[in-house]
Amino acid sequence: MASPLQPGGLIPLWTFLLLVGGVAEAGKLLVLPMDGSHWLSMRMVVEELHQRGHELVVIIPEVSWRLVKTAPYTVKTYKPSYSFEDLNRVFKRFSDNQWDDIDKGLLMLMNPNITSFFEYVFSNCNSLFKNTELLQYIKESAFDAIFFDPFDQCGFIVAKYFSLPSVAFARGLFCHYHEEATQSPGPLSYIPRGLTGLSDSMTFMERVWNSITHLQEMLLCPFFFQKTLDFATDVLQRPMTSKELYGDTSIWLLRGDFVFDYPKPLMPNVVYVGGITCHEGKLLSQEFEAYVNASGEHGVVVFSLGSMVSEIPMTKAMEIAEALGTIPQTVLWRYTGKPPSNLAKNTKLVKWLPQNDLLAHPKTRAFITHAGSHGTYEGLCNGVPMVLMPLFGDQMDNAKRMESRGAGVILNVLEMTSDDLSKALKTVINDKSYKENIMRLSALHKDRPISPLDLAVFWVEFVMRNKGAPHLRAAAHDLNWIQYHSLDVIAFLLAIVLTVVLIAVKCLKFCFQKCFGKKEKAKKATKSKSH
Amino acid sequence: MASPLQPGGLIPLWTFLLLVGGVAEAGKLLVLPMDGSHWLSMRMVVEELHQRGHELVVIIPEVSWRLVKTAPYTVKTYKPSYSFEDLNRVFKRFSDNQWDDIDKGLLMLMNPNITSFFEYVFSNCNSLFKNTELLQYIKESAFDAIFFDPFDQCGFIVAKYFSLPSVAFARGLFCHYHEEATQSPGPLSYIPRGLTGLSDSMTFMERVWNSITHLQEMLLCPFFFQKTLDFATDVLQRPMTSKELYGDTSIWLLRGDFVFDYPKPLMPNVVYVGGITCHEGKLLSQEFEAYVNASGEHGVVVFSLGSMVSEIPMTKAMEIAEALGTIPQTVLWRYTGKPPSNLAKNTKLVKWLPQNDLLAHPKTRAFITHAGSHGTYEGLCNGVPMVLMPLFGDQMDNAKRMESRGAGVILNVLEMTSDDLSKALKTVINDKSYKENIMRLSALHKDRPISPLDLAVFWVEFVMRNKGAPHLRAAAHDLNWIQYHSLDVIAFLLAIVLTVVLIAVKCLKFCFQKCFGKKEKAKKATKSKSH
Repeated sequence: MASPLQPGGLIPLWTFLLLVGGVAEAGKLLVLPMDGSHWLSMRMVVEELHQRGHELVVIIPEVSWRLVKTAPYTVKTYKPSYSFEDLNRVFKRFSDNQWDDIDKGLLMLMNPNITSFFEYVFSNCNSLFKNTELLQYIKESAFDAIFFDPFDQCGFIVAKYFSLPSVAFARGLFCHYHEEATQSPGPLSYIPRGLTGLSDSMTFMERVWNSITHLQEMLLCPFFFQKTLDFATDVLQRPMTSKELYGDTSIWLLRGDFVFDYPKPLMPNVVYVGGITCHEGKLLSQEFEAYVNASGEHGVVVFSLGSMVSEIPMTKAMEIAEALGTIPQTVLWRYTGKPPSNLAKNTKLVKWLPQNDLLAHPKTRAFITHAGSHGTYEGLCNGVPMVLMPLFGDQMDNAKRMESRGAGVILNVLEMTSDDLSKALKTVINDKSYKENIMRLSALHKDRPISPLDLAVFWVEFVMRNKGAPHLRAAAHDLNWIQYHSLDVIAFLLAIVLTVVLIAVKCLKFCFQKCFGKKEKAKKATKSKSH
Repeated sequence: MASPLQPGGLIPLWTFLLLVGGVAEAGKLLVLPMDGSHWLSMRMVVEELHQRGHELVVIIPEVSWRLVKTAPYTVKTYKPSYSFEDLNRVFKRFSDNQWDDIDKGLLMLMNPNITSFFEYVFSNCNSLFKNTELLQYIKESAFDAIFFDPFDQCGFIVAKYFSLPSVAFARGLFCHYHEEATQSPGPLSYIPRGLTGLSDSMTFMERVWNSITHLQEMLLCPFFFQKTLDFATDVLQRPMTSKELYGDTSIWLLRGDFVFDYPKPLMPNVVYVGGITCHEGKLLSQEFEAYVNASGEHGVVVFSLGSMVSEIPMTKAMEIAEALGTIPQTVLWRYTGKPPSNLAKNTKLVKWLPQNDLLAHPKTRAFITHAGSHGTYEGLCNGVPMVLMPLFGDQMDNAKRMESRGAGVILNVLEMTSDDLSKALKTVINDKSYKENIMRLSALHKDRPISPLDLAVFWVEFVMRNKGAPHLRAAAHDLNWIQYHSLDVIAFLLAIVLTVVLIAVKCLKFCFQKCFGKKEKAKKATKSKSH
């Protein structure tokens, strides 16, 4: 049967009504996005909301890579504490760090090369709140809601400061704080913690490691978030805990999907909109069309390590180039660094490539990716087997999800040899099971009752229309840790049971003494008499 | 802004594609419904699936109230072990039992007046499996999936027997077994157990009672389900636990909604389709139109205790009639028993009434209901304040949900006086907050990205199309109780900590003795010398 996201799918009865009805009443939305690849998917929702007639005001720092001042909706800027050169310098340190053999787990949160970049991002909120003119503008604008990327945490503070209902849009928060914020249960026995690269089917020792990781989080994460909480406390003029700051978000639009992510419980105000950037491939430009056509029966391999990697250490780049020369496919490699000298004829270096359109092309045989969430979703959506080279953050987790479903092969980019990459490529291209698995996953991924973009737009509008979504907020938010886990109830019931047992024992003892004690005495008395 | 289920709402982009695409490929579906009011909502999904071109075979017992043999889809029957008279007799005992002041909680599962009716229902499965001709027919039909009401448990067994992917359609299972079956977490601190009438905001003593109820369930429920498990073991020729029998259901379509139900975590294969019977009111028949028109400015009150109550004890009926006479509204009372002699002029007894259409009429001021799930949803959907008289099963829980949201007043039908009912009616009609609250809830209830009927149809088709939904099945299913709660991991980590502490203490003790022991000896030696 046809999928409902494909022609021939489900036609909801009520859509006929809607088509007659026209466009919904317009609202006023404040948007706080994040720079970089995060903006790729959020922009789609923002543009769709603008198309639907809402008044949007997007607030961005003056210095940024992808956030632009000229847009069909209103853009307001504030001056950050750094220059463009500062940002690039600190980002290069952050990016280069990925090629050192450091701990990829939670301890990265203590690595100054990493944290200095985060500090730059987090400093934006301070800059925003210093701009009194902008604050006054927001106050006077009387927005219906705020739509924000929670990565830099600022949206939470702005929402509270202006008492705005809020919609967060993210892949998740560090340290699973989005789960804490929504009171979502996450049993450690089958829900792997972030940055562990574990799957939902764990051995005993993996479960032990998962629990230890959670203990690490409990120790390290509060330090990581402390500066935000201090700043929020300062701005909002009342003590802020993470529970209070993050817990009032009306709706969480998370870029998840159960074809990609492991099945787990979700709270009513969490909506999965993973694969939002997935769309039909457009016609390729002449340049890329020529590459693809020239590839012959073997087709092409698309290779990109994302926008965060501009350069690779030369020895590593040469190893990679050597491996790429061993396959009959044409390789289109997005790379801005110095070209390796041993580049084979089949490998074309390009500064940029139309990733989704190339992946959607029937001649594409494999995708070499760093397993960032957008790229992985595009590979999944277009049904292209992957060679996964995770570098940082959630990339190992994303990669593990694809590998555990038989849709890709993971390589440790720091340790792999040229031969490993060559073998991995030949495996995903020639072993038919990889293509079959990714095609099955792709079909399931698209088989949803409503497209992720429409779902995201619906919930932002819902929050604007209804001034929040309090009916989706679990009562668990009003309980403390002891109450939530019923520890007080357990203690109370145990106390009752113990008291009853104690009284029963006392009574029995008393009865025993009354009955047998007398007899004993009587016996003794009889005995003493008989002597 | 307009709700997306109303004209002026959301227009999903992809629906344009769908409208072009036409109807999905037809599948073959086996349907096992339940008799009585359960069929009201399931029939809507069945009819819609039939409309969409699927081949449906509905299997029913020859003896039934609402399940009929003549339908546009194929209906197959089997002979049950009872006659129509038997069924009515045992149901009357079950129904009359509600007017005795018995325990309304879990202990009802031990009441023979209740259990004898359940035994009749459960016996159907035995009758079905005795019909070898029917079994052969099902086997040869090669269905894509089974769609069943899990109340009588038979669907689980049929699904396993014929290895069919399955979709269950219900309000829930007794004893929260649907949560166990989906591995859904249900913290006792804010998720009230069934039949307790508790809300999600509980006092300490209510939380204690909620925990005790769960302990009761753990004791009593296995007995209640044992016969089914024994029968399943017998039929399937292998030992069946509840986890194994219920845990393989692909999708659970539950008649829940977070405007009605308390927010709680849901598993990926649980879909809320509450309010599926809610639709625009149709024109009333001449008889009812006349009643409503004659009611003047005061309007009407709709009164029905559902199809399960045919008669009320006369003293109670007279008390009710007296109360109804005290309000200026016209009361339309669905009642098939002997009319009370003190019936006031404003009260019209009718054998049947078009409940949804009357509730949808703008002149309807209040709804007196037993708080069955269908009726409560219709009151909610149409925004009519309610006087709730729960009698049995989940009715107290439903009633509590409406009361806790300020949309109705609960009365204990066994203990209430005529005056109590009169006051309750005047309160919900004259205190504007009730109307405001139910109208707000009604708007939220209808403000969903896709209608519950379309959602239900989508997921049945999804299971037919994809032969199940294994990607939505949590890995928790593969863990035992100790593993799920990480008790083995905790024991292991504790053992390590204890071992480390013990070794550390031993080492310290040894060092202490080495260092201070020598000094002590030396001191002693010095002392003895000096003497």
